[in-house]
Amino acid sequence: MTASSPAETAPLATVVLAAGKGTRMKSDLHKVLHPIAGRPMVEHLMASAAELAPARQVVVAGHGREQLEKALGDRATIAVQDPQLGTGHAVQQAEGALQGFDGDVLILYGDVPFVSAATMRAMIDRLHGADSPAVVVLAFEPADALQYGRVIAEDGVVKKMVEHKDATEAERACTLCNSGLMAVRSVELFGLLARVGNANAQGEYYLTDIVNIANADGRTCAVVVTPDADEVAGINSRGELAEAERRWQERRRIRAMAEGATLVAPETVWFAWDTVLGRDVTVEQNVVFGPGVSVADGAVIHAFCHLEGARVESGVSIGPFARLRPGAVLEEKSRVGNFVEVKNAVLHKGAKANHLTYLGDADVGEGANIGAGTITCNYDGYFKHKTVIGPRAFIGSNSALIAPVKIGADAIVAAGSAVSRDVADGELRLVRAEQLIKPGWADAFHDAMKRKKAEKK
Amino acid sequence: MTASSPAETAPLATVVLAAGKGTRMKSDLHKVLHPIAGRPMVEHLMASAAELAPARQVVVAGHGREQLEKALGDRATIAVQDPQLGTGHAVQQAEGALQGFDGDVLILYGDVPFVSAATMRAMIDRLHGADSPAVVVLAFEPADALQYGRVIAEDGVVKKMVEHKDATEAERACTLCNSGLMAVRSVELFGLLARVGNANAQGEYYLTDIVNIANADGRTCAVVVTPDADEVAGINSRGELAEAERRWQERRRIRAMAEGATLVAPETVWFAWDTVLGRDVTVEQNVVFGPGVSVADGAVIHAFCHLEGARVESGVSIGPFARLRPGAVLEEKSRVGNFVEVKNAVLHKGAKANHLTYLGDADVGEGANIGAGTITCNYDGYFKHKTVIGPRAFIGSNSALIAPVKIGADAIVAAGSAVSRDVADGELRLVRAEQLIKPGWADAFHDAMKRKKAEKK
Amino acid sequence: MTASSPAETAPLATVVLAAGKGTRMKSDLHKVLHPIAGRPMVEHLMASAAELAPARQVVVAGHGREQLEKALGDRATIAVQDPQLGTGHAVQQAEGALQGFDGDVLILYGDVPFVSAATMRAMIDRLHGADSPAVVVLAFEPADALQYGRVIAEDGVVKKMVEHKDATEAERACTLCNSGLMAVRSVELFGLLARVGNANAQGEYYLTDIVNIANADGRTCAVVVTPDADEVAGINSRGELAEAERRWQERRRIRAMAEGATLVAPETVWFAWDTVLGRDVTVEQNVVFGPGVSVADGAVIHAFCHLEGARVESGVSIGPFARLRPGAVLEEKSRVGNFVEVKNAVLHKGAKANHLTYLGDADVGEGANIGAGTITCNYDGYFKHKTVIGPRAFIGSNSALIAPVKIGADAIVAAGSAVSRDVADGELRLVRAEQLIKPGWADAFHDAMKRKKAEKK
Repeated sequence: MTASSPAETAPLATVVLAAGKGTRMKSDLHKVLHPIAGRPMVEHLMASAAELAPARQVVVAGHGREQLEKALGDRATIAVQDPQLGTGHAVQQAEGALQGFDGDVLILYGDVPFVSAATMRAMIDRLHGADSPAVVVLAFEPADALQYGRVIAEDGVVKKMVEHKDATEAERACTLCNSGLMAVRSVELFGLLARVGNANAQGEYYLTDIVNIANADGRTCAVVVTPDADEVAGINSRGELAEAERRWQERRRIRAMAEGATLVAPETVWFAWDTVLGRDVTVEQNVVFGPGVSVADGAVIHAFCHLEGARVESGVSIGPFARLRPGAVLEEKSRVGNFVEVKNAVLHKGAKANHLTYLGDADVGEGANIGAGTITCNYDGYFKHKTVIGPRAFIGSNSALIAPVKIGADAIVAAGSAVSRDVADGELRLVRAEQLIKPGWADAFHDAMKRKKAEKK
Repeated sequence: MTASSPAETAPLATVVLAAGKGTRMKSDLHKVLHPIAGRPMVEHLMASAAELAPARQVVVAGHGREQLEKALGDRATIAVQDPQLGTGHAVQQAEGALQGFDGDVLILYGDVPFVSAATMRAMIDRLHGADSPAVVVLAFEPADALQYGRVIAEDGVVKKMVEHKDATEAERACTLCNSGLMAVRSVELFGLLARVGNANAQGEYYLTDIVNIANADGRTCAVVVTPDADEVAGINSRGELAEAERRWQERRRIRAMAEGATLVAPETVWFAWDTVLGRDVTVEQNVVFGPGVSVADGAVIHAFCHLEGARVESGVSIGPFARLRPGAVLEEKSRVGNFVEVKNAVLHKGAKANHLTYLGDADVGEGANIGAGTITCNYDGYFKHKTVIGPRAFIGSNSALIAPVKIGADAIVAAGSAVSRDVADGELRLVRAEQLIKPGWADAFHDAMKRKKAEKK
Repeated sequence: MTASSPAETAPLATVVLAAGKGTRMKSDLHKVLHPIAGRPMVEHLMASAAELAPARQVVVAGHGREQLEKALGDRATIAVQDPQLGTGHAVQQAEGALQGFDGDVLILYGDVPFVSAATMRAMIDRLHGADSPAVVVLAFEPADALQYGRVIAEDGVVKKMVEHKDATEAERACTLCNSGLMAVRSVELFGLLARVGNANAQGEYYLTDIVNIANADGRTCAVVVTPDADEVAGINSRGELAEAERRWQERRRIRAMAEGATLVAPETVWFAWDTVLGRDVTVEQNVVFGPGVSVADGAVIHAFCHLEGARVESGVSIGPFARLRPGAVLEEKSRVGNFVEVKNAVLHKGAKANHLTYLGDADVGEGANIGAGTITCNYDGYFKHKTVIGPRAFIGSNSALIAPVKIGADAIVAAGSAVSRDVADGELRLVRAEQLIKPGWADAFHDAMKRKKAEKK
C-alpha cells in the first residue's frame, strides 16, 4: 500500500468529523486541537490528507467550533453540527460545504489523526475498483477486538456491519473491526445518508448504516484493511493522547537513527513534527525539539537542551543546558554552552557564547567571544532593540549590552561593563567604577554580625 | 473493598514493625525512612492507617531507633526491640505502649508501606465478622508464589499457615500467600504471643505462629485477600525502593491525566506525595515536583523544571529550566522563564522574570518586569533581607538589588545597576560608571597577545 | 565461568577485526569508535581482553584506519586489510604483526564489544583442554536463532559449522549459533587460514571455514557456549548502538543500587564506563555522568545535573541544574546549586556556590560563600588566568572576579563589584558607581513610550 499517483483523476473532498464533546479529555481546549509532537492532532490528519491534494476540506464542528475556526483559518471549511445526532448526521452537515462538488469523499475523524496518506489512497483506489463499490470501509485487526463493531466480509467485500453488542457469537469471532473511516462518491453519499434512521437505543443517526443500506440495494461495499492497527487508534483521553505521542516519538526516533543520527538515549529525545536532522548528528540525553528546528551534519546537541524555531548548522555544539528560541541561527562551528538562551539572534561562524548568557535580538560576528554572564538588554519595557557585535569582538564576562548598540570588529568590552554607547572597531570599552578599598572593614563587620547573631539566639 | 465508615466502633491501635536491620539497603538511613515520592515510606503507611483514626500508633524499632524518634516525633510511640528475636517478639514489645488499650490491633510493617486504608478496613471489618475470628490474616496472590509462606484456607477461613520450606507439594500448589499483616483484638493478642515458641532453625519467635495456636484452640482464623498484590510488596533493597517509586509514580501519572492534565511524556514527570494539579494543566517533559506544590487550572510547566513548596496560580507559565523553591508564589498569569530561581518570593499577577534571574526573599509587584540577569542580593553572610518591587516597575538587565531595598511603583532601574538604596515611585535609578573609551587599545592588545602566544609555542 | 588465573601460561595475542565498512551506521566516524557509556566500543573490548594480559594486541583495519590509529595510539598494532575479502582474509592480515609470536590467538570483533574477560578466559582454557582442540568456537543461544549460522555440536565438540542458508531443516532446529569468535594456537592458525577458499557466492574467505578444515583433518574443534547471549550482540546500526548503550546502562544502574546508592528514577541516570559511586549516595532524576567522575559517601546529586571529570567528596550536595566540568573538585560538604558551572576549580570544605555562577580556574577557600551571579573572568581571549578566594570570604552577588586575582581570607566583595585587583584579608572591596537618582524620570518615560506605542498601532 503506497501513496502512489492516483488510479483515477476524480477530485477528492475530505470530511473530518470533529463535533464530539471530548468529555473524557476534561479540557477547555477542543479535543482535536490537543497537540502531538507540537502540532494539533487534526493538523497531522489534514497534512496526510493534503498528500492526496483534495479539492475541498470540510471539518464538521460542534462544541468549540470557534477554536477550530481560529486554528484552521481558511485551510478548511467549517460545517456546524448542532445538535449532535450521530456520525451519519455529522457527515450530512457537510452537504452544504460540498455543494457543487462531484467526486470522491473521504470521511475521516479529527481524533483519529494518524491515518497515513497511503491508507487513504488505498481506500480511494478501491472505490474505483472494477466492481465499483458504493462504499469503501477501512477496517483494522486489533490485538483485542472485544469492544469494536465488526466488519463481516468475504474476499474484500462487506457482507454486514454489526455493532459488538448486536453481534452473534460467530460474528464476534470475526476480528475484522470497523475504523469508522469511509470513502464514498459524493453523488451517492448524501442519498444514502438521507435513508439512515435513528431507531436505536441512543436515538442517533449512524454513518455505518449506509453500508447495510447499500448492501440491501444490492450494491457492493468493499473493505480495505490497514496493515497497522495503530494508525486508526482514536484519542479520547489524556492517557490516549500521551500514548499517541509516545508511539509517534518512537517511530520518529527509529527513523532518526536509521538516517544516521546517534541518540544516546532515544527514549529521552522528543522531536517535533517538522524536525530536520542531518547525518552524524549526535543528540544526547533529554533533548526537546519544539517546532521549526533543523540541525545540520555533524552537530552535537548535548544533554538537557531545548530548541524551537532554530537553525543549527554543521559542526555546531550546543549545551548542555542550552535553550534556543525562535529566530536562533547558529552558523557553522559556533558554540552555545550551558545556561545560555538565544532568541532571534544569529551567531556567525565560530562565534561562542559558552556560559550563563542571554542573547536576544542580536547579531554576533564571526569568531566573536561572548563572556560568561553577558546579557543583551534588548527590551526597554515597550520596544525591542538590536545588538550588533562585530567579528572577533571580545565581550568580557558579566557585561550588559544595552541595545540598540553596536560593538565593532576586534573590539573589547571589559568585564563587568554596562555598555550603552557604540564601541568602535579595535576599541577597548571599560565601564567600571573605582575600586574602593576598606582595609579591615570586613573583619569588623564579621565581628559585629557574629555578636548580633549571638544576641538573636 | 472501600474505606467506608467502620462496621464497629471498637478503638484501633496500629503496631508498625520497623526493627529489621535493612542490611540489603546498605544505608546509614533507617530503611523505613527512605523516601518514596518525597516522603519516608513509613509515613505513607501511617497516613493510610490514619484514615482509620487509630487511637494509638506504636512503632517497634530496633537499630536506628533514634532516627525513627526524630522523624516521627510524637506521632507514634516508639517501642524498642533489643535484641531482635523475630516478628512475634517484636509485636510483644508493643505491649507496654498498649497498656490500658482495649480494642483492635492492626499489625503492619514499616517496609510494606503501600497497604491501602481500604485493605486495613477490610481486615478490621472481618475481625468483627459474625464468626468472630481470633486472628485475621492478610493474604495475597502473587504472580510467582515460589518463596512465600502459604495460607491454606477454605471459604475465607485459615486451615493452616505454613512456611514455604515446610510445605508439602499440595500446600505449595496453593498460591495464597501470607503478607504478614494481621488484625487481632488486644485482649487476645498478647496471650497468643506468650505461647509462641522459638524451637525453629533461626531460634526466632514468629508472629505467624499465633494463627496455628488459635486454630489448635479451636478458634476461627480468617483470611482477607488483597485485590492488589503490589500493595503488600516489601522493600528490602534500593532496587525494590526504585521499583516501589516507579509503581507509585505510574499510578499518580495516570490519575493526573484522568483528572485533566496533559503530560506530554508521562514517564518523565515525577510527583510528590502531595502534589495538587488543576484542570487543563500542561506538564511538559522532565518535570520534578518536590513536596508542597500546587498548580492551578491552565498553568503550563515547560520542560526541565523543578518545583518544591510552590504555589502556581492559574494561567502561569514556568520554564523551561526554571526552579521554584519553598515559598515561591506565582500569582495569576505571572511568568518565570529559563535559568530562573525563585525562593520565598511572590510574583504578583502578571509579573515576569524570564531569564537568568535569582529572586530570593522578594515581593514582586503586579505587572513588574524583571530583566535578564537580575539578582536579589538577599544574604549578607549572616542574615536574609527582603526586596520589595512595586507594581509595573522595570528592573533593567544585569541589575543587583541589594536587600533590604524597595523599588517603587512604575520605577525604572537602569540595566547593570547595583541598587543599594530605595527607589521612589516613578523614579529612574542609574548606577553606572563612566564609559571609558580607549580607541585602538584592543587592536594593540590583540597584537601583543598574538605575539606572546606565538612565543609560548 | 570466571576470570580466574590462567590454566596455562602460554602467551596470548588478540586479533580484533575492525575492517568492515559499517555502512548501516551512516557515519564518518569509524564504527568501532562510536562510544558507549562515553568510551569507544572497541575500547570496552580491549579493556576486557586486557584482563587476560595479552602479549600482543592487533587490530585489523580497513576503511578509516587513520581514525583507529589516532584513537588507539600504541595500545595496538594496526594491520591493514585492503581490499576486504572476508573474515578469514582479515585475520590473515594479522600474520605480519604476529611474526615471532608463539601462543594462543583470540579472534575478536570490534563491533562485538561486550564479550567478558570470563568468556575469553573460558575459550582459552578450553583450547588447552585434555583433547587439545585445534579451534575453539564461541557459540550462543539467542532467543530467535533464525538468521545465524549454526554450530552443530555434540558434547562440546563441533561436528560442523553451517551457514543458515545452507542448513538442513534438522540443522536449523539446532539453536546453537556461531558468534564468530575463536581461539586458535598461532602455530596452527595461519596454516588453516591458508587453506580457506573463496568459492562461494560472495567470493570471500570465511574464517568459519577453518573449523570444517580442521575437522576434515580429523582434529577436534571445541565449542564454548556463552551464558549470556547479549555479550556477543553485534552493533551494526545506530539503533543497535542505542540498544547496547541501554543494556549497559541497565546493568550499571542495578549494580549502583546493589552497592548502596539510591537512584530515584534509575532509567534516567546515565553512567560513564568509569563512574565511581560511594555508599548512601543519592542520585535524583536525570543525571548524566561523563567520564572521570567519582562521588563519595553520602553525597546528593539532585535532578538535572551533568558531571564530567569531577571529584565529589562526602556530604556534598549538587544541583539541581548544576554542571561540573573536568577538574572540578568539591570537597567535603561543599555545595553547588542551580545554574552553576564549575570547571577546573576546587571548592574547599563547606564552600558554597548556590546560584547562577561560573567558577573556572579557581580555588575557593574553606567555608567561602559565592553569591548569586558571580563570574570568574578567567579568559582574556588568549590565556586562562586563576582566581584564588580565601577561606570564609564572601563574594557579593553579581560580582565579576577578573583573573588573575586573589581575594583574601574573610574578605568581602560588595555585590555588583568587578574586582580587578587583589583584595586583602579582612578587607571590604566595593566597586560601584554613584547612585544617580532621577525623580519622575520613569513616569515621564512611561508616558512618552505609551504615546509612541499608540502611534505605531
